[in-house]
Amino acid sequence: MEYETPQFFRVMQYAKRADRDVVDMVSGNPDWESPESLREGLHAYADSDPDAFQYPPSVGLGGLREEIATRRGVDTGQVLITNGAGEANHLAMTGGLEAMSGSEILLTDPVYPYYAGRVSLLDAERTFVPASESGHLDPATVREYASEQTAVIVVNSPNNPLGVTYDGRTVRELVAIAEEHDALLVSDEVYDHFDYSGRFESALAVDSPNRIVTNSFSKSMAITGWRVGYAVFPDSDGELLDRARTRHMLTNVTGSRPVQAAVLHALRHMDPSYYEQNRERLRQRISTFTAALDDVGAAYTDPEGAFYVMARFPDFAGSLENVERLIDEAGVAGMPGEAFGDSRAEWIRFALVTPRVEAAADRLTAFFG
Amino acid sequence: MEYETPQFFRVMQYAKRADRDVVDMVSGNPDWESPESLREGLHAYADSDPDAFQYPPSVGLGGLREEIATRRGVDTGQVLITNGAGEANHLAMTGGLEAMSGSEILLTDPVYPYYAGRVSLLDAERTFVPASESGHLDPATVREYASEQTAVIVVNSPNNPLGVTYDGRTVRELVAIAEEHDALLVSDEVYDHFDYSGRFESALAVDSPNRIVTNSFSKSMAITGWRVGYAVFPDSDGELLDRARTRHMLTNVTGSRPVQAAVLHALRHMDPSYYEQNRERLRQRISTFTAALDDVGAAYTDPEGAFYVMARFPDFAGSLENVERLIDEAGVAGMPGEAFGDSRAEWIRFALVTPRVEAAADRLTAFFG
Repeated sequence: MEYETPQFFRVMQYAKRADRDVVDMVSGNPDWESPESLREGLHAYADSDPDAFQYPPSVGLGGLREEIATRRGVDTGQVLITNGAGEANHLAMTGGLEAMSGSEILLTDPVYPYYAGRVSLLDAERTFVPASESGHLDPATVREYASEQTAVIVVNSPNNPLGVTYDGRTVRELVAIAEEHDALLVSDEVYDHFDYSGRFESALAVDSPNRIVTNSFSKSMAITGWRVGYAVFPDSDGELLDRARTRHMLTNVTGSRPVQAAVLHALRHMDPSYYEQNRERLRQRISTFTAALDDVGAAYTDPEGAFYVMARFPDFAGSLENVERLIDEAGVAGMPGEAFGDSRAEWIRFALVTPRVEAAADRLTAFFG
Repeated sequence: MEYETPQFFRVMQYAKRADRDVVDMVSGNPDWESPESLREGLHAYADSDPDAFQYPPSVGLGGLREEIATRRGVDTGQVLITNGAGEANHLAMTGGLEAMSGSEILLTDPVYPYYAGRVSLLDAERTFVPASESGHLDPATVREYASEQTAVIVVNSPNNPLGVTYDGRTVRELVAIAEEHDALLVSDEVYDHFDYSGRFESALAVDSPNRIVTNSFSKSMAITGWRVGYAVFPDSDGELLDRARTRHMLTNVTGSRPVQAAVLHALRHMDPSYYEQNRERLRQRISTFTAALDDVGAAYTDPEGAFYVMARFPDFAGSLENVERLIDEAGVAGMPGEAFGDSRAEWIRFALVTPRVEAAADRLTAFFG
């Protein structure tokens, strides 16, 4: 499987060209407002002195690293600001493959396609650990697949595309498995503010030299296009951080400063109820959407986190062909399950980042009902 | 030689800790204002709708690519927006090494240290082509060093650290040499708006499948911390662009959107005399500074472009030790020539990006006079 963004693109283009109104549930772009203080922060930056327009430290603005470190309970030196979680994952996976023993990267199936694409770019071996029937990741299954060959294990909780959240026991077990095999656990937690189950636990809860946590403000502040992410490393002066810092400097020099300044301003001044308002909005959408799925007898993974519901309709596989049919005949655009790997080829992923979830639910009920 | 940013950092820290006032001529950060329309563009973006805060196309905002393409006389499809020229150079060098025959990268000596660091990161062979006595690059010398082993040739004009500008004949010859050896010429032209000699010619003047031109708005709009750069590829659908696009997507997903929007606004609305005002400011600084160098009998490369003067003082090598002595005893901070390679170890680089060039000139005259 190549990285699948072209398929996202293809589905979105198809939906746009459709001869009818279509509810777009393809991409994971939030459709809600950013914190007002984020806009204020960008305005304030736009008025700052010329020297504030020049290179920040390569590792990121000191104030932002400190603010993140305080919130995450780590040392500022452990935090590297990146161009979104994308770069954080890239740096963590690349450095882990170089620093740890083994030449294989473990991913889950279904998988967020960028992870798989990065493994191809690194020319590493790739092994997929199947998610359980409920969409969770069973540590016993991961242990079966892990071996001395395993250098990196990449997981994502709350999870894209399945919409589930791993519990604390799973996360602790994943760290232990990484330690057992001299491997690195990369825990991508970009949806950490979108846990509806209360079960989310960050991999930072376990202190270990074998885990890196990645995150970003793309989802939590509704700014996927701004590119402010970060990675938390085990130590302020270890090999993993050294490698990432060097690669970051030689690839990007540094991340963009205006957006770092604005995010810092927002973290300091925003109303924390913002996060809960977003969760409440999504809880309502989930409720509306899953009621329709129940009505038409579709199976789906229980939406515990993130923005997604993965559903399987009776006698209607999650192929690109069927997704296009759903666009044309029902006016609802989702992502084919096959884009995320073999195991969910019968499924379709719907992103609940549109105000028109109710319309989508009605249309699916009419189409399948 | 490792990438030398730690040495920049070390010198700047030393200057900051000094027990006296020091004129900082270490970094290449512009000290002048950005175009007013750039600030306007960022303000306008900060007020835009939530969907303008989400992912732009991975290759960059369409409007910005079009605007650049029009100005550079190329097709929009040839333009990839990057996280500064740093990422553009990284993508071009990495892709060139993969796509072209040979495993060696030719750099100049003296060299901008990031280029050398990138070659280390790529684990490629590295060969330095010495600049001529005047600081220019003699195509005959490049031809001597180029071979079937050469995959990539990286040049920078107007040049950092030497402050010279290559002429059109040199640029055309460099493209020809790349073609002769199935190599890729990467022409980094970030200082193209800072040519005082009138001799600058872009490598885009020659149509060739063997050259990529990289650039950014970091210097031309005085925004080194914003990270908006670009690469112009030979074709809209060639292998070099394909490789860069994939690597860009899997490394960064996309560049930061607010800064792309603001730069586009500035390109459309700024007064073009802005560039000439900056050149005039630098011409005056050059004149002041070189007069002092003449007074004390220092040799220097004729400043034809960029922000730099490289000078050799009588009996005063360009070592870190001497640079620190100049900070303590003269109150002027430059960069040791040894940071840029062996050939200019006797020299010191001064960046004219401070309003206090006259004070620096007076201090050097007093110290060496």
